[in-house]
Amino acid sequence: MRVLVTGAGGFVGGALVPVLAERGCELTLTDRNCDGIGNFAPARIVAGDIADEQVLREAVRDADAVIHLATVPGGTAEEHPDLASRINVAASMSLSRLLAAARPGGAFVFASSIAVLGHPLPQAVDDGTPLEPRLLYGAHKAMVETWLAALSRRGELSAISLRLPGIVARPAAPSGMKSAFTSDVFHAIAANRPIELPVSAAATMWLMSVRQVAICLADGLDAALQDLPAGRAVTLPALRVGMGELVAEICRQVEADAALVRYRPDDAIETGFGRQPPLHTPAASGLGFSHDGDIARLVRSALDTL
Amino acid sequence: MRVLVTGAGGFVGGALVPVLAERGCELTLTDRNCDGIGNFAPARIVAGDIADEQVLREAVRDADAVIHLATVPGGTAEEHPDLASRINVAASMSLSRLLAAARPGGAFVFASSIAVLGHPLPQAVDDGTPLEPRLLYGAHKAMVETWLAALSRRGELSAISLRLPGIVARPAAPSGMKSAFTSDVFHAIAANRPIELPVSAAATMWLMSVRQVAICLADGLDAALQDLPAGRAVTLPALRVGMGELVAEICRQVEADAALVRYRPDDAIETGFGRQPPLHTPAASGLGFSHDGDIARLVRSALDTL
Repeated sequence: MRVLVTGAGGFVGGALVPVLAERGCELTLTDRNCDGIGNFAPARIVAGDIADEQVLREAVRDADAVIHLATVPGGTAEEHPDLASRINVAASMSLSRLLAAARPGGAFVFASSIAVLGHPLPQAVDDGTPLEPRLLYGAHKAMVETWLAALSRRGELSAISLRLPGIVARPAAPSGMKSAFTSDVFHAIAANRPIELPVSAAATMWLMSVRQVAICLADGLDAALQDLPAGRAVTLPALRVGMGELVAEICRQVEADAALVRYRPDDAIETGFGRQPPLHTPAASGLGFSHDGDIARLVRSALDTL
Repeated sequence: MRVLVTGAGGFVGGALVPVLAERGCELTLTDRNCDGIGNFAPARIVAGDIADEQVLREAVRDADAVIHLATVPGGTAEEHPDLASRINVAASMSLSRLLAAARPGGAFVFASSIAVLGHPLPQAVDDGTPLEPRLLYGAHKAMVETWLAALSRRGELSAISLRLPGIVARPAAPSGMKSAFTSDVFHAIAANRPIELPVSAAATMWLMSVRQVAICLADGLDAALQDLPAGRAVTLPALRVGMGELVAEICRQVEADAALVRYRPDDAIETGFGRQPPLHTPAASGLGFSHDGDIARLVRSALDTL
């Protein structure tokens, strides 16, 4: 089976590609910058911008399935809303239609986001929580979920949208993500460098290691072909972790001093990213998706990929 | 208050413009073909395609509010999905962002559709019925509802999406709408011309006269500024009318013979458009929206605008 991965040159793509290769998938990989990819034997590389229909056509032509990661993330989308619409909505719609034409009924795994839920969140979140996105990024993801569910209902493709939680630990470079602090804290403590966090120690976040995210996305290829509920979107399980608890566990594993960390909560960040309530995801669990297991394993996995 | 109406040259636009003029609105009217409009004193006319950002900018620049009618309808969208995406999704997103920039918090009334509900429909439809569109057109409308609700939640504009039922009687010319038979039956009987319908006499449809639709859309300008539920979308009330009953009432009012009508149900049309169950729309009713009252008034109003 040949799987097209968009955004393959990105952080999540870098973790996903080896998982797919290990599972015996043939790969087509696309990204604007493909310098870092292509060391996986059977990969066909299509360098280019997915806003360009010709790039999409060339990437999709022999694909049996798609894992669609390419996106303009939250913070960048707020700064460049037109660009974000083109990539997050229009290109996603084009890509899905091209797969439906090339491979009717093919699996389409869409990297959606908990940003579709919006904020403030209710006291607890489950599979029935309404979508009330506040970020443009979250609105874009919710729109594409709707689109993919409609194409699936029509039998044109077999889509599943996986709402990813916070992913750790992203690279230290600016990511355009407003939740970057959850990753920055790993880099700082591991490097024995002081860091000031824009949330309180009491902040709670839904987190998953990038390796576990890669496993969920790869598993999505099979899940997409199941008999799914009409919305064909599931919120992935995630560990709900307190910021203070996370800092303590990172410090324990790298033998650092928690005094490296200062908390200076920013109201908008705390509200938007630091008040994530208990999370119940029976739909995803029923399909076999799981989180990292416990905070020690989450931190170990994240530190391994720094 | 200056109201921009997109698709002002269309069938619904033609009914809406006089209602707005009568209520004292200044008007900016846009459409690809503006030949038939412009007889309303204070109207500024912007002829052009809303897929062209420059046309949108020129149209929005002095608007206080927008009523967004322009769309690629159901049947045409199925035949030209790329065009439909550009107009129904991308242009709607651009237009709403331009209003938000020109007039933060401005009212935005979006002509959505019962096509967002999909088919087959459940035994009864109410404000809690999930959206499961099957037409590309319905998916596009659901996506824009999501987008407008997000912009409203952000305080960028004050949107309301009104899900319009079947509208009678559209012009006899090809409309690109799969539900055209609900209008064609008025033209045929009024002209004493035989007609073959693609549904059975037992088919049930949700209908509203174009005059009543125009009133609802104009009322939407105030409703959009209310404290609405998070989704900011309401299914409009509609009369649920049986096809046989509709034929009988048209025949009664124009003194024609019901033998003009033959029923030759097409499974896809009957399923998609002729099995509309009881409809309960307390959210819309609570905001003051109403249907035509009874079938006699519905038919009278539709015949008046043939």
